[in-house]
Amino acid sequence: MDEFAFINQVKQSVYRQPSLVKGVGDDAAVFRQPSQDIVTAADTLVEGVHFSRAIMDPFHIGYRSLAANVSDIAAMGAAPAFYLVSIVIPDSCSDEELNGIYQGLSSAASVHHMDLIGGDTVSGSELSIAVTAIGFVQKEKARFRSLAQPGDILFVTGTLGGAAAGFHMLNSDKYYIDRTYYENKHRMPYIRSDFACQLESLNRVTLNDISDGIANEANEIADASHVTLTIEEERIPVRASFAQFTAEEQHDWKLYGGEDFELLGSVSEDEWDELKTIAERTETPLTKIGYVDSAVKKGHQVILIDHTNKPVQLLKKGYTHRNR
Amino acid sequence: MDEFAFINQVKQSVYRQPSLVKGVGDDAAVFRQPSQDIVTAADTLVEGVHFSRAIMDPFHIGYRSLAANVSDIAAMGAAPAFYLVSIVIPDSCSDEELNGIYQGLSSAASVHHMDLIGGDTVSGSELSIAVTAIGFVQKEKARFRSLAQPGDILFVTGTLGGAAAGFHMLNSDKYYIDRTYYENKHRMPYIRSDFACQLESLNRVTLNDISDGIANEANEIADASHVTLTIEEERIPVRASFAQFTAEEQHDWKLYGGEDFELLGSVSEDEWDELKTIAERTETPLTKIGYVDSAVKKGHQVILIDHTNKPVQLLKKGYTHRNR
Repeated sequence: MDEFAFINQVKQSVYRQPSLVKGVGDDAAVFRQPSQDIVTAADTLVEGVHFSRAIMDPFHIGYRSLAANVSDIAAMGAAPAFYLVSIVIPDSCSDEELNGIYQGLSSAASVHHMDLIGGDTVSGSELSIAVTAIGFVQKEKARFRSLAQPGDILFVTGTLGGAAAGFHMLNSDKYYIDRTYYENKHRMPYIRSDFACQLESLNRVTLNDISDGIANEANEIADASHVTLTIEEERIPVRASFAQFTAEEQHDWKLYGGEDFELLGSVSEDEWDELKTIAERTETPLTKIGYVDSAVKKGHQVILIDHTNKPVQLLKKGYTHRNR
Repeated sequence: MDEFAFINQVKQSVYRQPSLVKGVGDDAAVFRQPSQDIVTAADTLVEGVHFSRAIMDPFHIGYRSLAANVSDIAAMGAAPAFYLVSIVIPDSCSDEELNGIYQGLSSAASVHHMDLIGGDTVSGSELSIAVTAIGFVQKEKARFRSLAQPGDILFVTGTLGGAAAGFHMLNSDKYYIDRTYYENKHRMPYIRSDFACQLESLNRVTLNDISDGIANEANEIADASHVTLTIEEERIPVRASFAQFTAEEQHDWKLYGGEDFELLGSVSEDEWDELKTIAERTETPLTKIGYVDSAVKKGHQVILIDHTNKPVQLLKKGYTHRNR
């Protein structure tokens, strides 16, 4: 399939976003956004690093590529609107597989009311998918990770560790309870977009999407906000069937497991009730998992109150765990 | 070098664009543009397909990657503002090479007053650089390729065929006059950004950037505008030293040579003088090369009046050339 035939095939016949002036088909796309701030993020998925065609079908590869980018937009409290995608296609990738990837992208775009407005397909030796996502947020309401303040309640959406468990299952023939749920948690992550962009009524909320595990994201908030976060391990929400895994798996996956794409955030006690109302309205499971303190002299850090009620420092993935 | 060390290294300490609210460092970047339309394009360059480390140094690979995207923004009559870049880095690429690529990107960004606001670096087996560029244009003034009208003057900026000649020289040890000029035309293309975004005073102008040869771009305008374009071959501007090449090379490179990144466009006779004034003000060589007619019954097409004064149909690169 040549590049132009392909572009014509994936070009949307109807666009969803009223701000779009010109979609695919000229040198660039044009949109207009006089009333809101514009949020944009780019992310690339490479075969063998971020996904494997051995355990993921093309549809899921496409779906997940866009979902990962929508998650970054949601983590700013913004509503996704557009995406551009560049795919490097190796000879080993058939037209059918390529169509599957686009079907997956389109399906995720449909879920999030997004329009494809640009990109290209080029040949190469390695399959990679580079997505740029663009979203909109009310002025001054972008939710930075630097906004946490002492006294805030720390919360998380959904349950954690499921995507890592799903990835494990996709690589295993063993019998597991709830296999489809976990596999889909990895292959078709549900992004908390509706919840995130309905937070505009709140004065201040901190958000970070959990793409590299809660330990990592919590440390990013602590660093950016110059605060200490305390997380109570027993409060970290997991699915009931998560108990089927070994204690070590549970611990690793819920703290360091990547790509759950749930939201970790903080909000003042005053606005906690309103946050809960928004969560109910958008059918978003919301759990209080800890609180924010001022940074201790040792620096901005994350403390985990473990299952023995002992405080340990929670470091980013790959770092040594030291007891205090 | 890990991803975070690298991001901190390339992160700009000062941003140039006043519309930027938040640059690199959160889940996504944020900007605000209430008064202008927003233009965006994505383009990926893959080693072995779009460039070779054997003949291009890392600086030029980076420079050209951004320049190619700025060209798409200029072809909409817009001023570039931001870019996001995702680089897939193979093991064969040293930290020094990677820095060279970023130096090239930064240099092109500096020329065009752009800010790096996002992206990532991921490991893979093949070097590829995916850039998304974002620019701004006065409302309703994006210059679509569909705007050409019968009676328009057809024009081109700069000279054509130089980038193809430069690419040829980079692969040759032969003696050539003006070698540095031609090689730089390929390695560090000059984008007509200043000229393009000063056209806002014109009511109507069509623009297309010459990335795949004038034959290709002219056909795109003819198709999109439902018109016939006539180009006089003798008027197509080339550099004086272009005469050193064989007749066949000259013909091929000026008509089908890619990546000159000059602008092909059309404007009404009424606005031609104003266009010339803008070209003079921005020191942009501007040449009238033909005119626009209504589409003949055979369809939208491009006619080349060749050096023997005979009209031939000019087809896209790769298509058979048929005499009429």
